[in-house]
Amino acid sequence: MSHASTQALLARLNIALPILQAPMAGVSSPAMAAAVTAAGGLGALGLGAAGAEGARRMIAEFTARCTGPLNVNLFTHPAAQADAPREAAWISRLRPAFAAYGAEPPERLGEIYTSFLADDAMLALLLELRPAVVSLHFGLPDAKRLAALRGAGITLLATVTNLAEARLAEAAGIDALVAQGYEAGGHRGMFDPAAPDDRLGTLALTRLLATQTGLPVIAAGGIMDGAGISAALALGAAAAQLGTAYIGTAESLADAGYRAALFSEAAHHTVMTSAISGRPARSLANRFTALGAALDAAEIPAYPIAYDLGKALHIAAKAAGEPGYGAQWAGQGAPLARRMSAAALTRALAQELRPA
Amino acid sequence: MSHASTQALLARLNIALPILQAPMAGVSSPAMAAAVTAAGGLGALGLGAAGAEGARRMIAEFTARCTGPLNVNLFTHPAAQADAPREAAWISRLRPAFAAYGAEPPERLGEIYTSFLADDAMLALLLELRPAVVSLHFGLPDAKRLAALRGAGITLLATVTNLAEARLAEAAGIDALVAQGYEAGGHRGMFDPAAPDDRLGTLALTRLLATQTGLPVIAAGGIMDGAGISAALALGAAAAQLGTAYIGTAESLADAGYRAALFSEAAHHTVMTSAISGRPARSLANRFTALGAALDAAEIPAYPIAYDLGKALHIAAKAAGEPGYGAQWAGQGAPLARRMSAAALTRALAQELRPA
Repeated sequence: MSHASTQALLARLNIALPILQAPMAGVSSPAMAAAVTAAGGLGALGLGAAGAEGARRMIAEFTARCTGPLNVNLFTHPAAQADAPREAAWISRLRPAFAAYGAEPPERLGEIYTSFLADDAMLALLLELRPAVVSLHFGLPDAKRLAALRGAGITLLATVTNLAEARLAEAAGIDALVAQGYEAGGHRGMFDPAAPDDRLGTLALTRLLATQTGLPVIAAGGIMDGAGISAALALGAAAAQLGTAYIGTAESLADAGYRAALFSEAAHHTVMTSAISGRPARSLANRFTALGAALDAAEIPAYPIAYDLGKALHIAAKAAGEPGYGAQWAGQGAPLARRMSAAALTRALAQELRPA
Repeated sequence: MSHASTQALLARLNIALPILQAPMAGVSSPAMAAAVTAAGGLGALGLGAAGAEGARRMIAEFTARCTGPLNVNLFTHPAAQADAPREAAWISRLRPAFAAYGAEPPERLGEIYTSFLADDAMLALLLELRPAVVSLHFGLPDAKRLAALRGAGITLLATVTNLAEARLAEAAGIDALVAQGYEAGGHRGMFDPAAPDDRLGTLALTRLLATQTGLPVIAAGGIMDGAGISAALALGAAAAQLGTAYIGTAESLADAGYRAALFSEAAHHTVMTSAISGRPARSLANRFTALGAALDAAEIPAYPIAYDLGKALHIAAKAAGEPGYGAQWAGQGAPLARRMSAAALTRALAQELRPA
């Protein structure tokens, strides 16, 4: 924690610890984010699925609990290309899974999230509420939107998975890079999911970006404890981002089936799959990842259209007592997850980081 | 380097630095191994492809240069199952690639290496020459062979890629684990290549094994410099193993085409492929990995039968001036490779490791 880059980033983010809680749509909560920020890290909300009004409520809940900095995360995917035949075939493909739980799939699928690239209401909300940090996942908005956020005094982070994406982020004026290694849980932030993925591990990617770019690097993927954070700093990262470590905390929105899977043998077997949402994401091995492994990725509709069906299947199966079709996102560090509050976990991480 | 586990391992291995040069069959040389050991690390020879008489010559060359410890590495794969129709189909599949360079593929393929599991001459040689360290790749020999090596005072290492393999190694009495992350170049050491691979990254795997096993862990995969070694130690590893960092050194047996690829844009795009040898291995992106990406892995003959054809194709293409069918193994740290001698590199790593 003596690195100049760490000190500069912590000053910029107005936090004491080199710890960012990963923004996990559907898992992170205002209570989780507030607990992390109050403990000296940077709490985060995943707002990619929330819409502007949902985002306003969640940010207000955070603000009611905590006056410190907040990182709000947005999805910046290109608008989904609808493809009715592919979507109909996908519905047919999953129909037997619905039937196994006495349910029918929906007749058609929709683009359930509006990308931040096209969400003027969300942009207006951010310019009004001015969270300390906005982080971007799946790519970069246009220069005008970035300039507006920057003009509002907001620090900008972007997830990158390789050096080429890092260079694009640097050229766009992003303030710091979230280096998302292949170990990381949840959606892989690659800008173009159709491009070949070099699948860079957290160790290799962090060191590459720390040596080859001029931006502060926040390492993400497989980091679960103070030793992991220290390793990230040793690689030249300015800080570390932890998501999976917070899934099992008291403040998490993860449901009982997800928590049970996290603290089971399934934690040793995470799988990168596009079958749940339409984009590659790392999940605990479950019924949905098994289904995904058995089919051709070309069958899967675009993100987030596929996710419309994935969520419906999860709801149907869960109603019948089967939790295994959930989007049980988790990284490869899952076996090291701990059951405690987000506040206690953040304090434990700080303690583990302190020089012996 | 103040960890008790590091000090204990270094004492056991009789080395001063927590640095192991990876044994790379076809790349590492007696001169490379001697340079690393002389500089305070642990030099290694990959003898899996050498046979007992080749091994004797290589070990003698090392001994003539250096009196310090040597790690000799052996392949411990199950004997290949010959499958004449599959092999004939594979030869047909690659025939156009041979034809492009005016060559014919061989008419049939052989099991070009004898596994250490069945190589009594190699076992006798090791018991006679007693290298300080024997490391095992692709699995574990039977208890009798392990006991014989142990009885000769040899320290035993085994490559593992997940916790289940680590537990098998621990139960077999292995002295230290080489935790091979998904970033690592060359052959992936998984015991059963037909089993699902959790593809654990170096960071996640190292921390998992350091916390969940009782053995010293040697982290491998993506580590290219002192910062990488420090990160491994922060994760609880006792030492780090570096392979890709040594490919471009003066003492390396890598040919000109391989070196040129290593120091090119290809270094940013390594690929795990079974097409070259019949087992998953990470190579610089080249013509062979592209060929592998375009076909079904089920077509590929068993290791090392497939490698017989892979090597023949490389020889044919290289003779016609095309280096792109080489087994250009490299890990994800390849963009950070340096052109220097193995001795100078080892000294540089030691310097980078020293506390500022």
